[in-house]
Amino acid sequence: MDYSDREICSIFQDPVREGLDAVEEKLRDVLGSDMPLIDEICGYISLTPGKRLRPNILLLASKSVGGDGESAVTGGMAVELIHTATLVHDDIIDGHAMRRGRETVCSKWGRNVATIMGDFLYSMAFARLGEAGLDGIMKILARTTNVMSVGEMMQFQLARNIEVSEDRYMNMIYSKTASLFSASGECGAITAAGGKSNGSRERYSLFGTNLGLAFQITDDLFDYIAADDRIGKPVASDFADGRVTLPFITAFRNAPDPEKARVRELFHSGFSGRDEWGEVVSFVQNFGGIEYSLNKARELGETAKDTLLSARPSRERDALCHAADYVIRRVDPFSS
Amino acid sequence: MDYSDREICSIFQDPVREGLDAVEEKLRDVLGSDMPLIDEICGYISLTPGKRLRPNILLLASKSVGGDGESAVTGGMAVELIHTATLVHDDIIDGHAMRRGRETVCSKWGRNVATIMGDFLYSMAFARLGEAGLDGIMKILARTTNVMSVGEMMQFQLARNIEVSEDRYMNMIYSKTASLFSASGECGAITAAGGKSNGSRERYSLFGTNLGLAFQITDDLFDYIAADDRIGKPVASDFADGRVTLPFITAFRNAPDPEKARVRELFHSGFSGRDEWGEVVSFVQNFGGIEYSLNKARELGETAKDTLLSARPSRERDALCHAADYVIRRVDPFSS
Repeated sequence: MDYSDREICSIFQDPVREGLDAVEEKLRDVLGSDMPLIDEICGYISLTPGKRLRPNILLLASKSVGGDGESAVTGGMAVELIHTATLVHDDIIDGHAMRRGRETVCSKWGRNVATIMGDFLYSMAFARLGEAGLDGIMKILARTTNVMSVGEMMQFQLARNIEVSEDRYMNMIYSKTASLFSASGECGAITAAGGKSNGSRERYSLFGTNLGLAFQITDDLFDYIAADDRIGKPVASDFADGRVTLPFITAFRNAPDPEKARVRELFHSGFSGRDEWGEVVSFVQNFGGIEYSLNKARELGETAKDTLLSARPSRERDALCHAADYVIRRVDPFSS
Repeated sequence: MDYSDREICSIFQDPVREGLDAVEEKLRDVLGSDMPLIDEICGYISLTPGKRLRPNILLLASKSVGGDGESAVTGGMAVELIHTATLVHDDIIDGHAMRRGRETVCSKWGRNVATIMGDFLYSMAFARLGEAGLDGIMKILARTTNVMSVGEMMQFQLARNIEVSEDRYMNMIYSKTASLFSASGECGAITAAGGKSNGSRERYSLFGTNLGLAFQITDDLFDYIAADDRIGKPVASDFADGRVTLPFITAFRNAPDPEKARVRELFHSGFSGRDEWGEVVSFVQNFGGIEYSLNKARELGETAKDTLLSARPSRERDALCHAADYVIRRVDPFSS
């Protein structure tokens, strides 16, 4: 995160700073066990905190509907645990050795331990929600976790397929990524006093869906525009893993046959050198993949913000809009 | 299952035959998705049904407290889904190619698909409980799933260690196996009308714990007494995988040093031939491992039955006692 990143993040973090700190404390607290190996791995995981974007959204949604802070903190912990569990299992499947610039659990402790740790983190989320009596949040996250596993399977099935349609891609990223952002908004909204929703449940859920879709698209854009060290993943990892994402899907749709044939060859034969990866990046740039994806992400970000227009004005509602801006801003050279 | 097995099973299945059929139907129903690959694997899994012992216990406990049948069926489906998820992930970790005489999901579709399928099955259990509004059952099973993952990690950590104490073994099999039997009893008990427990929650939970411990011990005894085809697992799999269980732990405690040295060598160097496995079996037999474990299982079975003495007499209560007898009878040459 460079300085301007920090600044924009603080705009949507500050209104719920206390809640975010409480989530952090609860995560540290919850990740203890009687098992030294589990403790060791949990300690390692919590040393590499992300931006806690999902708990952030949950806390903001909750506060903007005047929701119960304690429930929101427990809910925030649960979505972060589920997110982390997903990463741990994802890294097994992708065979990734690095994540956020550090070694993955799978690479450091092996696939077997990573399989068990993912199960531990998932089930810990639900166990703690159950203890806290947060049945509503539990239901939303149970459904969502199932949707996410279907998304993971979709992604697996689309691997090594160069002809993925935009519809299938959008469907897959909804299931895999956006569903948990959607759930974060929804869980925040249902913490409202007396359980009165007044449409906010649907509103914050929809906000999360659109922000989540934008988030995944900008994440996928990184492969084609970012330097190696920026997000801690090796460049070209998705394409090299045999996965096409929106920037490539778009360019492949637009490109003439001879150019298609060349990238098809690179896709199927695999490649190791930076030169060949440079060819793919040029292909995506030349045939409008970057521009189209960026526009799509911008649109989704705007749609996310629009869903909150009908919500009661508040500092927290505005902060959610800043979060949507941030997601786009990560990759958008023209944003202010 | 031979003829007498069928006969004794029907004694505890018959009182809830309708419920068991309903669980089966719900499992078939729930395991559909829009994903062809998920459907294919679910179809494969449901073609190899086990004895549904966990739903059976849940249904019997529920009926014996006059519980709600519909809730018990959904609960029964959930415990079976969780059990199946555990098997799918276990087979990844153990690297087993066969289970119940058929190829495992991991072996047939690979580790990645098995990782995702386990997540799908776990989350499906909770998603359906949430939809049905069975918050109480959801809480019990969330806690239990977490305990099971800790048990799985314990087992992993004890691997390649020949000096496991009986206490650590018992602790591990409680977490890994008995906790889900305990949860099955407890979930059945809380379906009682008006949620009135009158101590039955603790009673059926304790029944499940003891039956579950007996179940795992008899399961572990199979390695040392059964022929290859009887349970569909290759003989000696646990020991060959570097895992010691109660029969071996006992013999190793009793044996003099020279004999210990020999099996230690076999344990650490690994072995391939039947002759060497024969040596280990003789060691366990000669130093009282079989007898001690069998007695322990018998005691636990009796304790399970004793916990139900204070329950209201009913056909279902008696059927649970028969289930406890069955678990022991699987390996006990002296049972009638």
